Amino acid sequence: MKTADVAVIGGSAAGLMAALTVKKRYPDKKIVVIRNVSKTPVPCGIPYIYGILKDVGKNIIQDQGFLDKGIDIITLEVASVDRSRKIIKFVDNSTLGYDKLILGVGSKPFMPPMPGINLKNVFAVSKEPEHLQKLYNALKNAKNVVVIGGGFIGVEMAEQVAKMGGAASKDHICSTQDSGSSVQVTVVEMLPHCLMLACEEQYCVEAENELGKMGITVLTNRQVKSMEGNGTVSVVTLNTGETLAADLVIIGIGAVPNIELAEKMGLKADPRAGIAVNEYMQTEDPDIYAAGDCASKFSFITGKPTGIRLASVACSEGMIAASNLYKHTRKTFGALGAFATSVGNRCFAAAGLSTKSAADEGIDVIIGEAVAANRHPGGMPGCITDMKAKLLFRKDNGKIIGGHVSGGEAAADMVNILAVAIQRGLTAEELATMQYATHPMLTASPLFYHIMLAAENAAFELTK
Amino acid sequence: MKTADVAVIGGSAAGLMAALTVKKRYPDKKIVVIRNVSKTPVPCGIPYIYGILKDVGKNIIQDQGFLDKGIDIITLEVASVDRSRKIIKFVDNSTLGYDKLILGVGSKPFMPPMPGINLKNVFAVSKEPEHLQKLYNALKNAKNVVVIGGGFIGVEMAEQVAKMGGAASKDHICSTQDSGSSVQVTVVEMLPHCLMLACEEQYCVEAENELGKMGITVLTNRQVKSMEGNGTVSVVTLNTGETLAADLVIIGIGAVPNIELAEKMGLKADPRAGIAVNEYMQTEDPDIYAAGDCASKFSFITGKPTGIRLASVACSEGMIAASNLYKHTRKTFGALGAFATSVGNRCFAAAGLSTKSAADEGIDVIIGEAVAANRHPGGMPGCITDMKAKLLFRKDNGKIIGGHVSGGEAAADMVNILAVAIQRGLTAEELATMQYATHPMLTASPLFYHIMLAAENAAFELTK
Repeated sequence: MKTADVAVIGGSAAGLMAALTVKKRYPDKKIVVIRNVSKTPVPCGIPYIYGILKDVGKNIIQDQGFLDKGIDIITLEVASVDRSRKIIKFVDNSTLGYDKLILGVGSKPFMPPMPGINLKNVFAVSKEPEHLQKLYNALKNAKNVVVIGGGFIGVEMAEQVAKMGGAASKDHICSTQDSGSSVQVTVVEMLPHCLMLACEEQYCVEAENELGKMGITVLTNRQVKSMEGNGTVSVVTLNTGETLAADLVIIGIGAVPNIELAEKMGLKADPRAGIAVNEYMQTEDPDIYAAGDCASKFSFITGKPTGIRLASVACSEGMIAASNLYKHTRKTFGALGAFATSVGNRCFAAAGLSTKSAADEGIDVIIGEAVAANRHPGGMPGCITDMKAKLLFRKDNGKIIGGHVSGGEAAADMVNILAVAIQRGLTAEELATMQYATHPMLTASPLFYHIMLAAENAAFELTK
Repeated sequence: MKTADVAVIGGSAAGLMAALTVKKRYPDKKIVVIRNVSKTPVPCGIPYIYGILKDVGKNIIQDQGFLDKGIDIITLEVASVDRSRKIIKFVDNSTLGYDKLILGVGSKPFMPPMPGINLKNVFAVSKEPEHLQKLYNALKNAKNVVVIGGGFIGVEMAEQVAKMGGAASKDHICSTQDSGSSVQVTVVEMLPHCLMLACEEQYCVEAENELGKMGITVLTNRQVKSMEGNGTVSVVTLNTGETLAADLVIIGIGAVPNIELAEKMGLKADPRAGIAVNEYMQTEDPDIYAAGDCASKFSFITGKPTGIRLASVACSEGMIAASNLYKHTRKTFGALGAFATSVGNRCFAAAGLSTKSAADEGIDVIIGEAVAANRHPGGMPGCITDMKAKLLFRKDNGKIIGGHVSGGEAAADMVNILAVAIQRGLTAEELATMQYATHPMLTASPLFYHIMLAAENAAFELTK
């Protein structure tokens, strides 16, 4: 029987990070990554297949870099795992023995039990290349696309499908337009705004405005009741009674952890929370760890169970799990929620809580905001005159628990400053008086660097 | 006699930040900013007047925003300050009484006592609009420009002068070429590399390569011995005996604090260190504070006196000084040194110590490095496949003391993550397992986010 010192089931973010970490920390261990897809798409890159990359094959994580490091890859579906004998059995009846096992089996799109869900041209955004290719083929002929769900995946898919149909966006210089196509895209969101689970309401409105400028219709406060069609979807009916013409529907309303294998293995797992792990990312079985979308998580800020499933969380967890295999050295401090996206001509990023989610948690906050150009002077190339930052500090201890940025491409790394600040519990006072690198071509003026300014505004409020 | 509650002498970064801070914290106080230049250029924007903005007037800090906040501005040279009577006397014999005084009088370019320094067409890079206009006029006719000094100001001036002469650079889409001009630019640097006081040697080499691609000659390990010419400079002679044709010379070899006024006032000041202040940015006179380039500073990392004169330090100090005027609430923690620049097609940023400066200080370090694309997948627009990060951690306590990034425009804010990490003493372990926002259009893959990867490499070294 073939054996591995460490077997990793799952070849996406958590699994690959776990494999890389094992190989670094225990270079003599034999590591096998097992996956059930022919190739692994870059998960966050999936929407960009359609409007920018124009090719499913351009959004694949290349195996070679992992093979070169001595990580083996097996492309086979796992049938079962015998924990007592420590043997993985595949669907072709082959087997693999293991000493330590990491489950990074991910999540799958949530498909609501809704009339019409099985009609042709109703697509989830899954992580199988063949499925993504089918979606691409169908999109090329679609005239009316309805996207159900206005979270990150829904908004990004809507933007890219519109771009596929010729809508202008900031990377128009680099993207080529599909000849002759024209598509009407509509986003249906249950909440009052798109992106609302992560972003400040005012930035959600900005994102919706960007979608609007691209010709995308955004319908909020609405739910899809049913889809109808003669074999193929043709109409989407909303709970308001409105009907939308639709020859293609994309569903992006969240993901649910893959727990079937873990349940078969007799490991504790919950359909919503995922496979139960402790802070070392260890399951009930001391030789089995889980990380990423399939693993249970708690919020860094509230300590409560959370459904934050992000590649950044998966990577952190994969690294922690792998580091702990032979000796517990690292604990997870919980999922933070650090997001970034690009919608039309603006970028949006967020870390931690929003004003709404803080209120929902009953946490009193002091807010500091700033608006300034992202270049200095304002005539420098690439200037967005109204780049914005909004920081939330706990009223009781003054520590930052949320950070939001809207504007240029630096939004992502500006929010990473805030993500680090949240993870380390910095105060407004500290963030206000820190020294930040600035440059005319790259950032706001040092007089108006957004984080400094927003923090100083909050620091002043906290002294009142 | 006119009076102000708070008088600020100096209208650039430190002075303006001080005025803004007083106005926020003490809105009822009458604040006057006094300056000796007609208008205040954006200090960091000065090089970009020449290659991008093409107009000195486009690089001016607009007064209106400050006037609108109720901050008065006086454009007059100060003749003297009577500290016992708390009266400022101007060169036109007018006076202004004050209760609290902040000195933000800045620095001036260091002009070496060198043969030929007074020849025509030998320019310092000062902060007077009229002088900058003269330089612009002279550059339009220059064919051979020698830049003495390969620090930030020298490298940026060289790049922009070359661009003025038609050299291509990444913002070529936005900039217009001066018709028919053509200029040969040479940088002379005393140290083995340009930018070496702030950046890692390998990144200095990258920056020099970028300059080379723009047709700029970089001569290192050389000093200028003299300049010659018949009234106007025509030749620069180096200590190696080499001679360079030069119809225009730009000197950018550092700045010295303006201490003349402080000395006249009887305040303790040193020609190199500047006006002596305590950690509250307070001078010997309890009612007088100093901030920015003119004020003495110590290094955040070593605690020793330092010559780090940056707008970001000035802004932090201006804010601290102003906050302390009526009650000491904030201390400076020392100058960190957080830099960013753009050279040709790459950006470079640094915070804290370099490998060399750490060695000079006798600090043993563990280094973690990472190279990865700044987009994911690599086919996304704006991808720089070899963006790099290099982090330095103290061997004794594991805390980060230096961070360096080379690559795309995010370099500045990625270094700001590291600047915050340095200021808060984060470890490699902490930076490795943190969660960072990533996005295909904006950052590296979460599997290869540069800071995480470099920190994990260092964390692993530290466990050995």
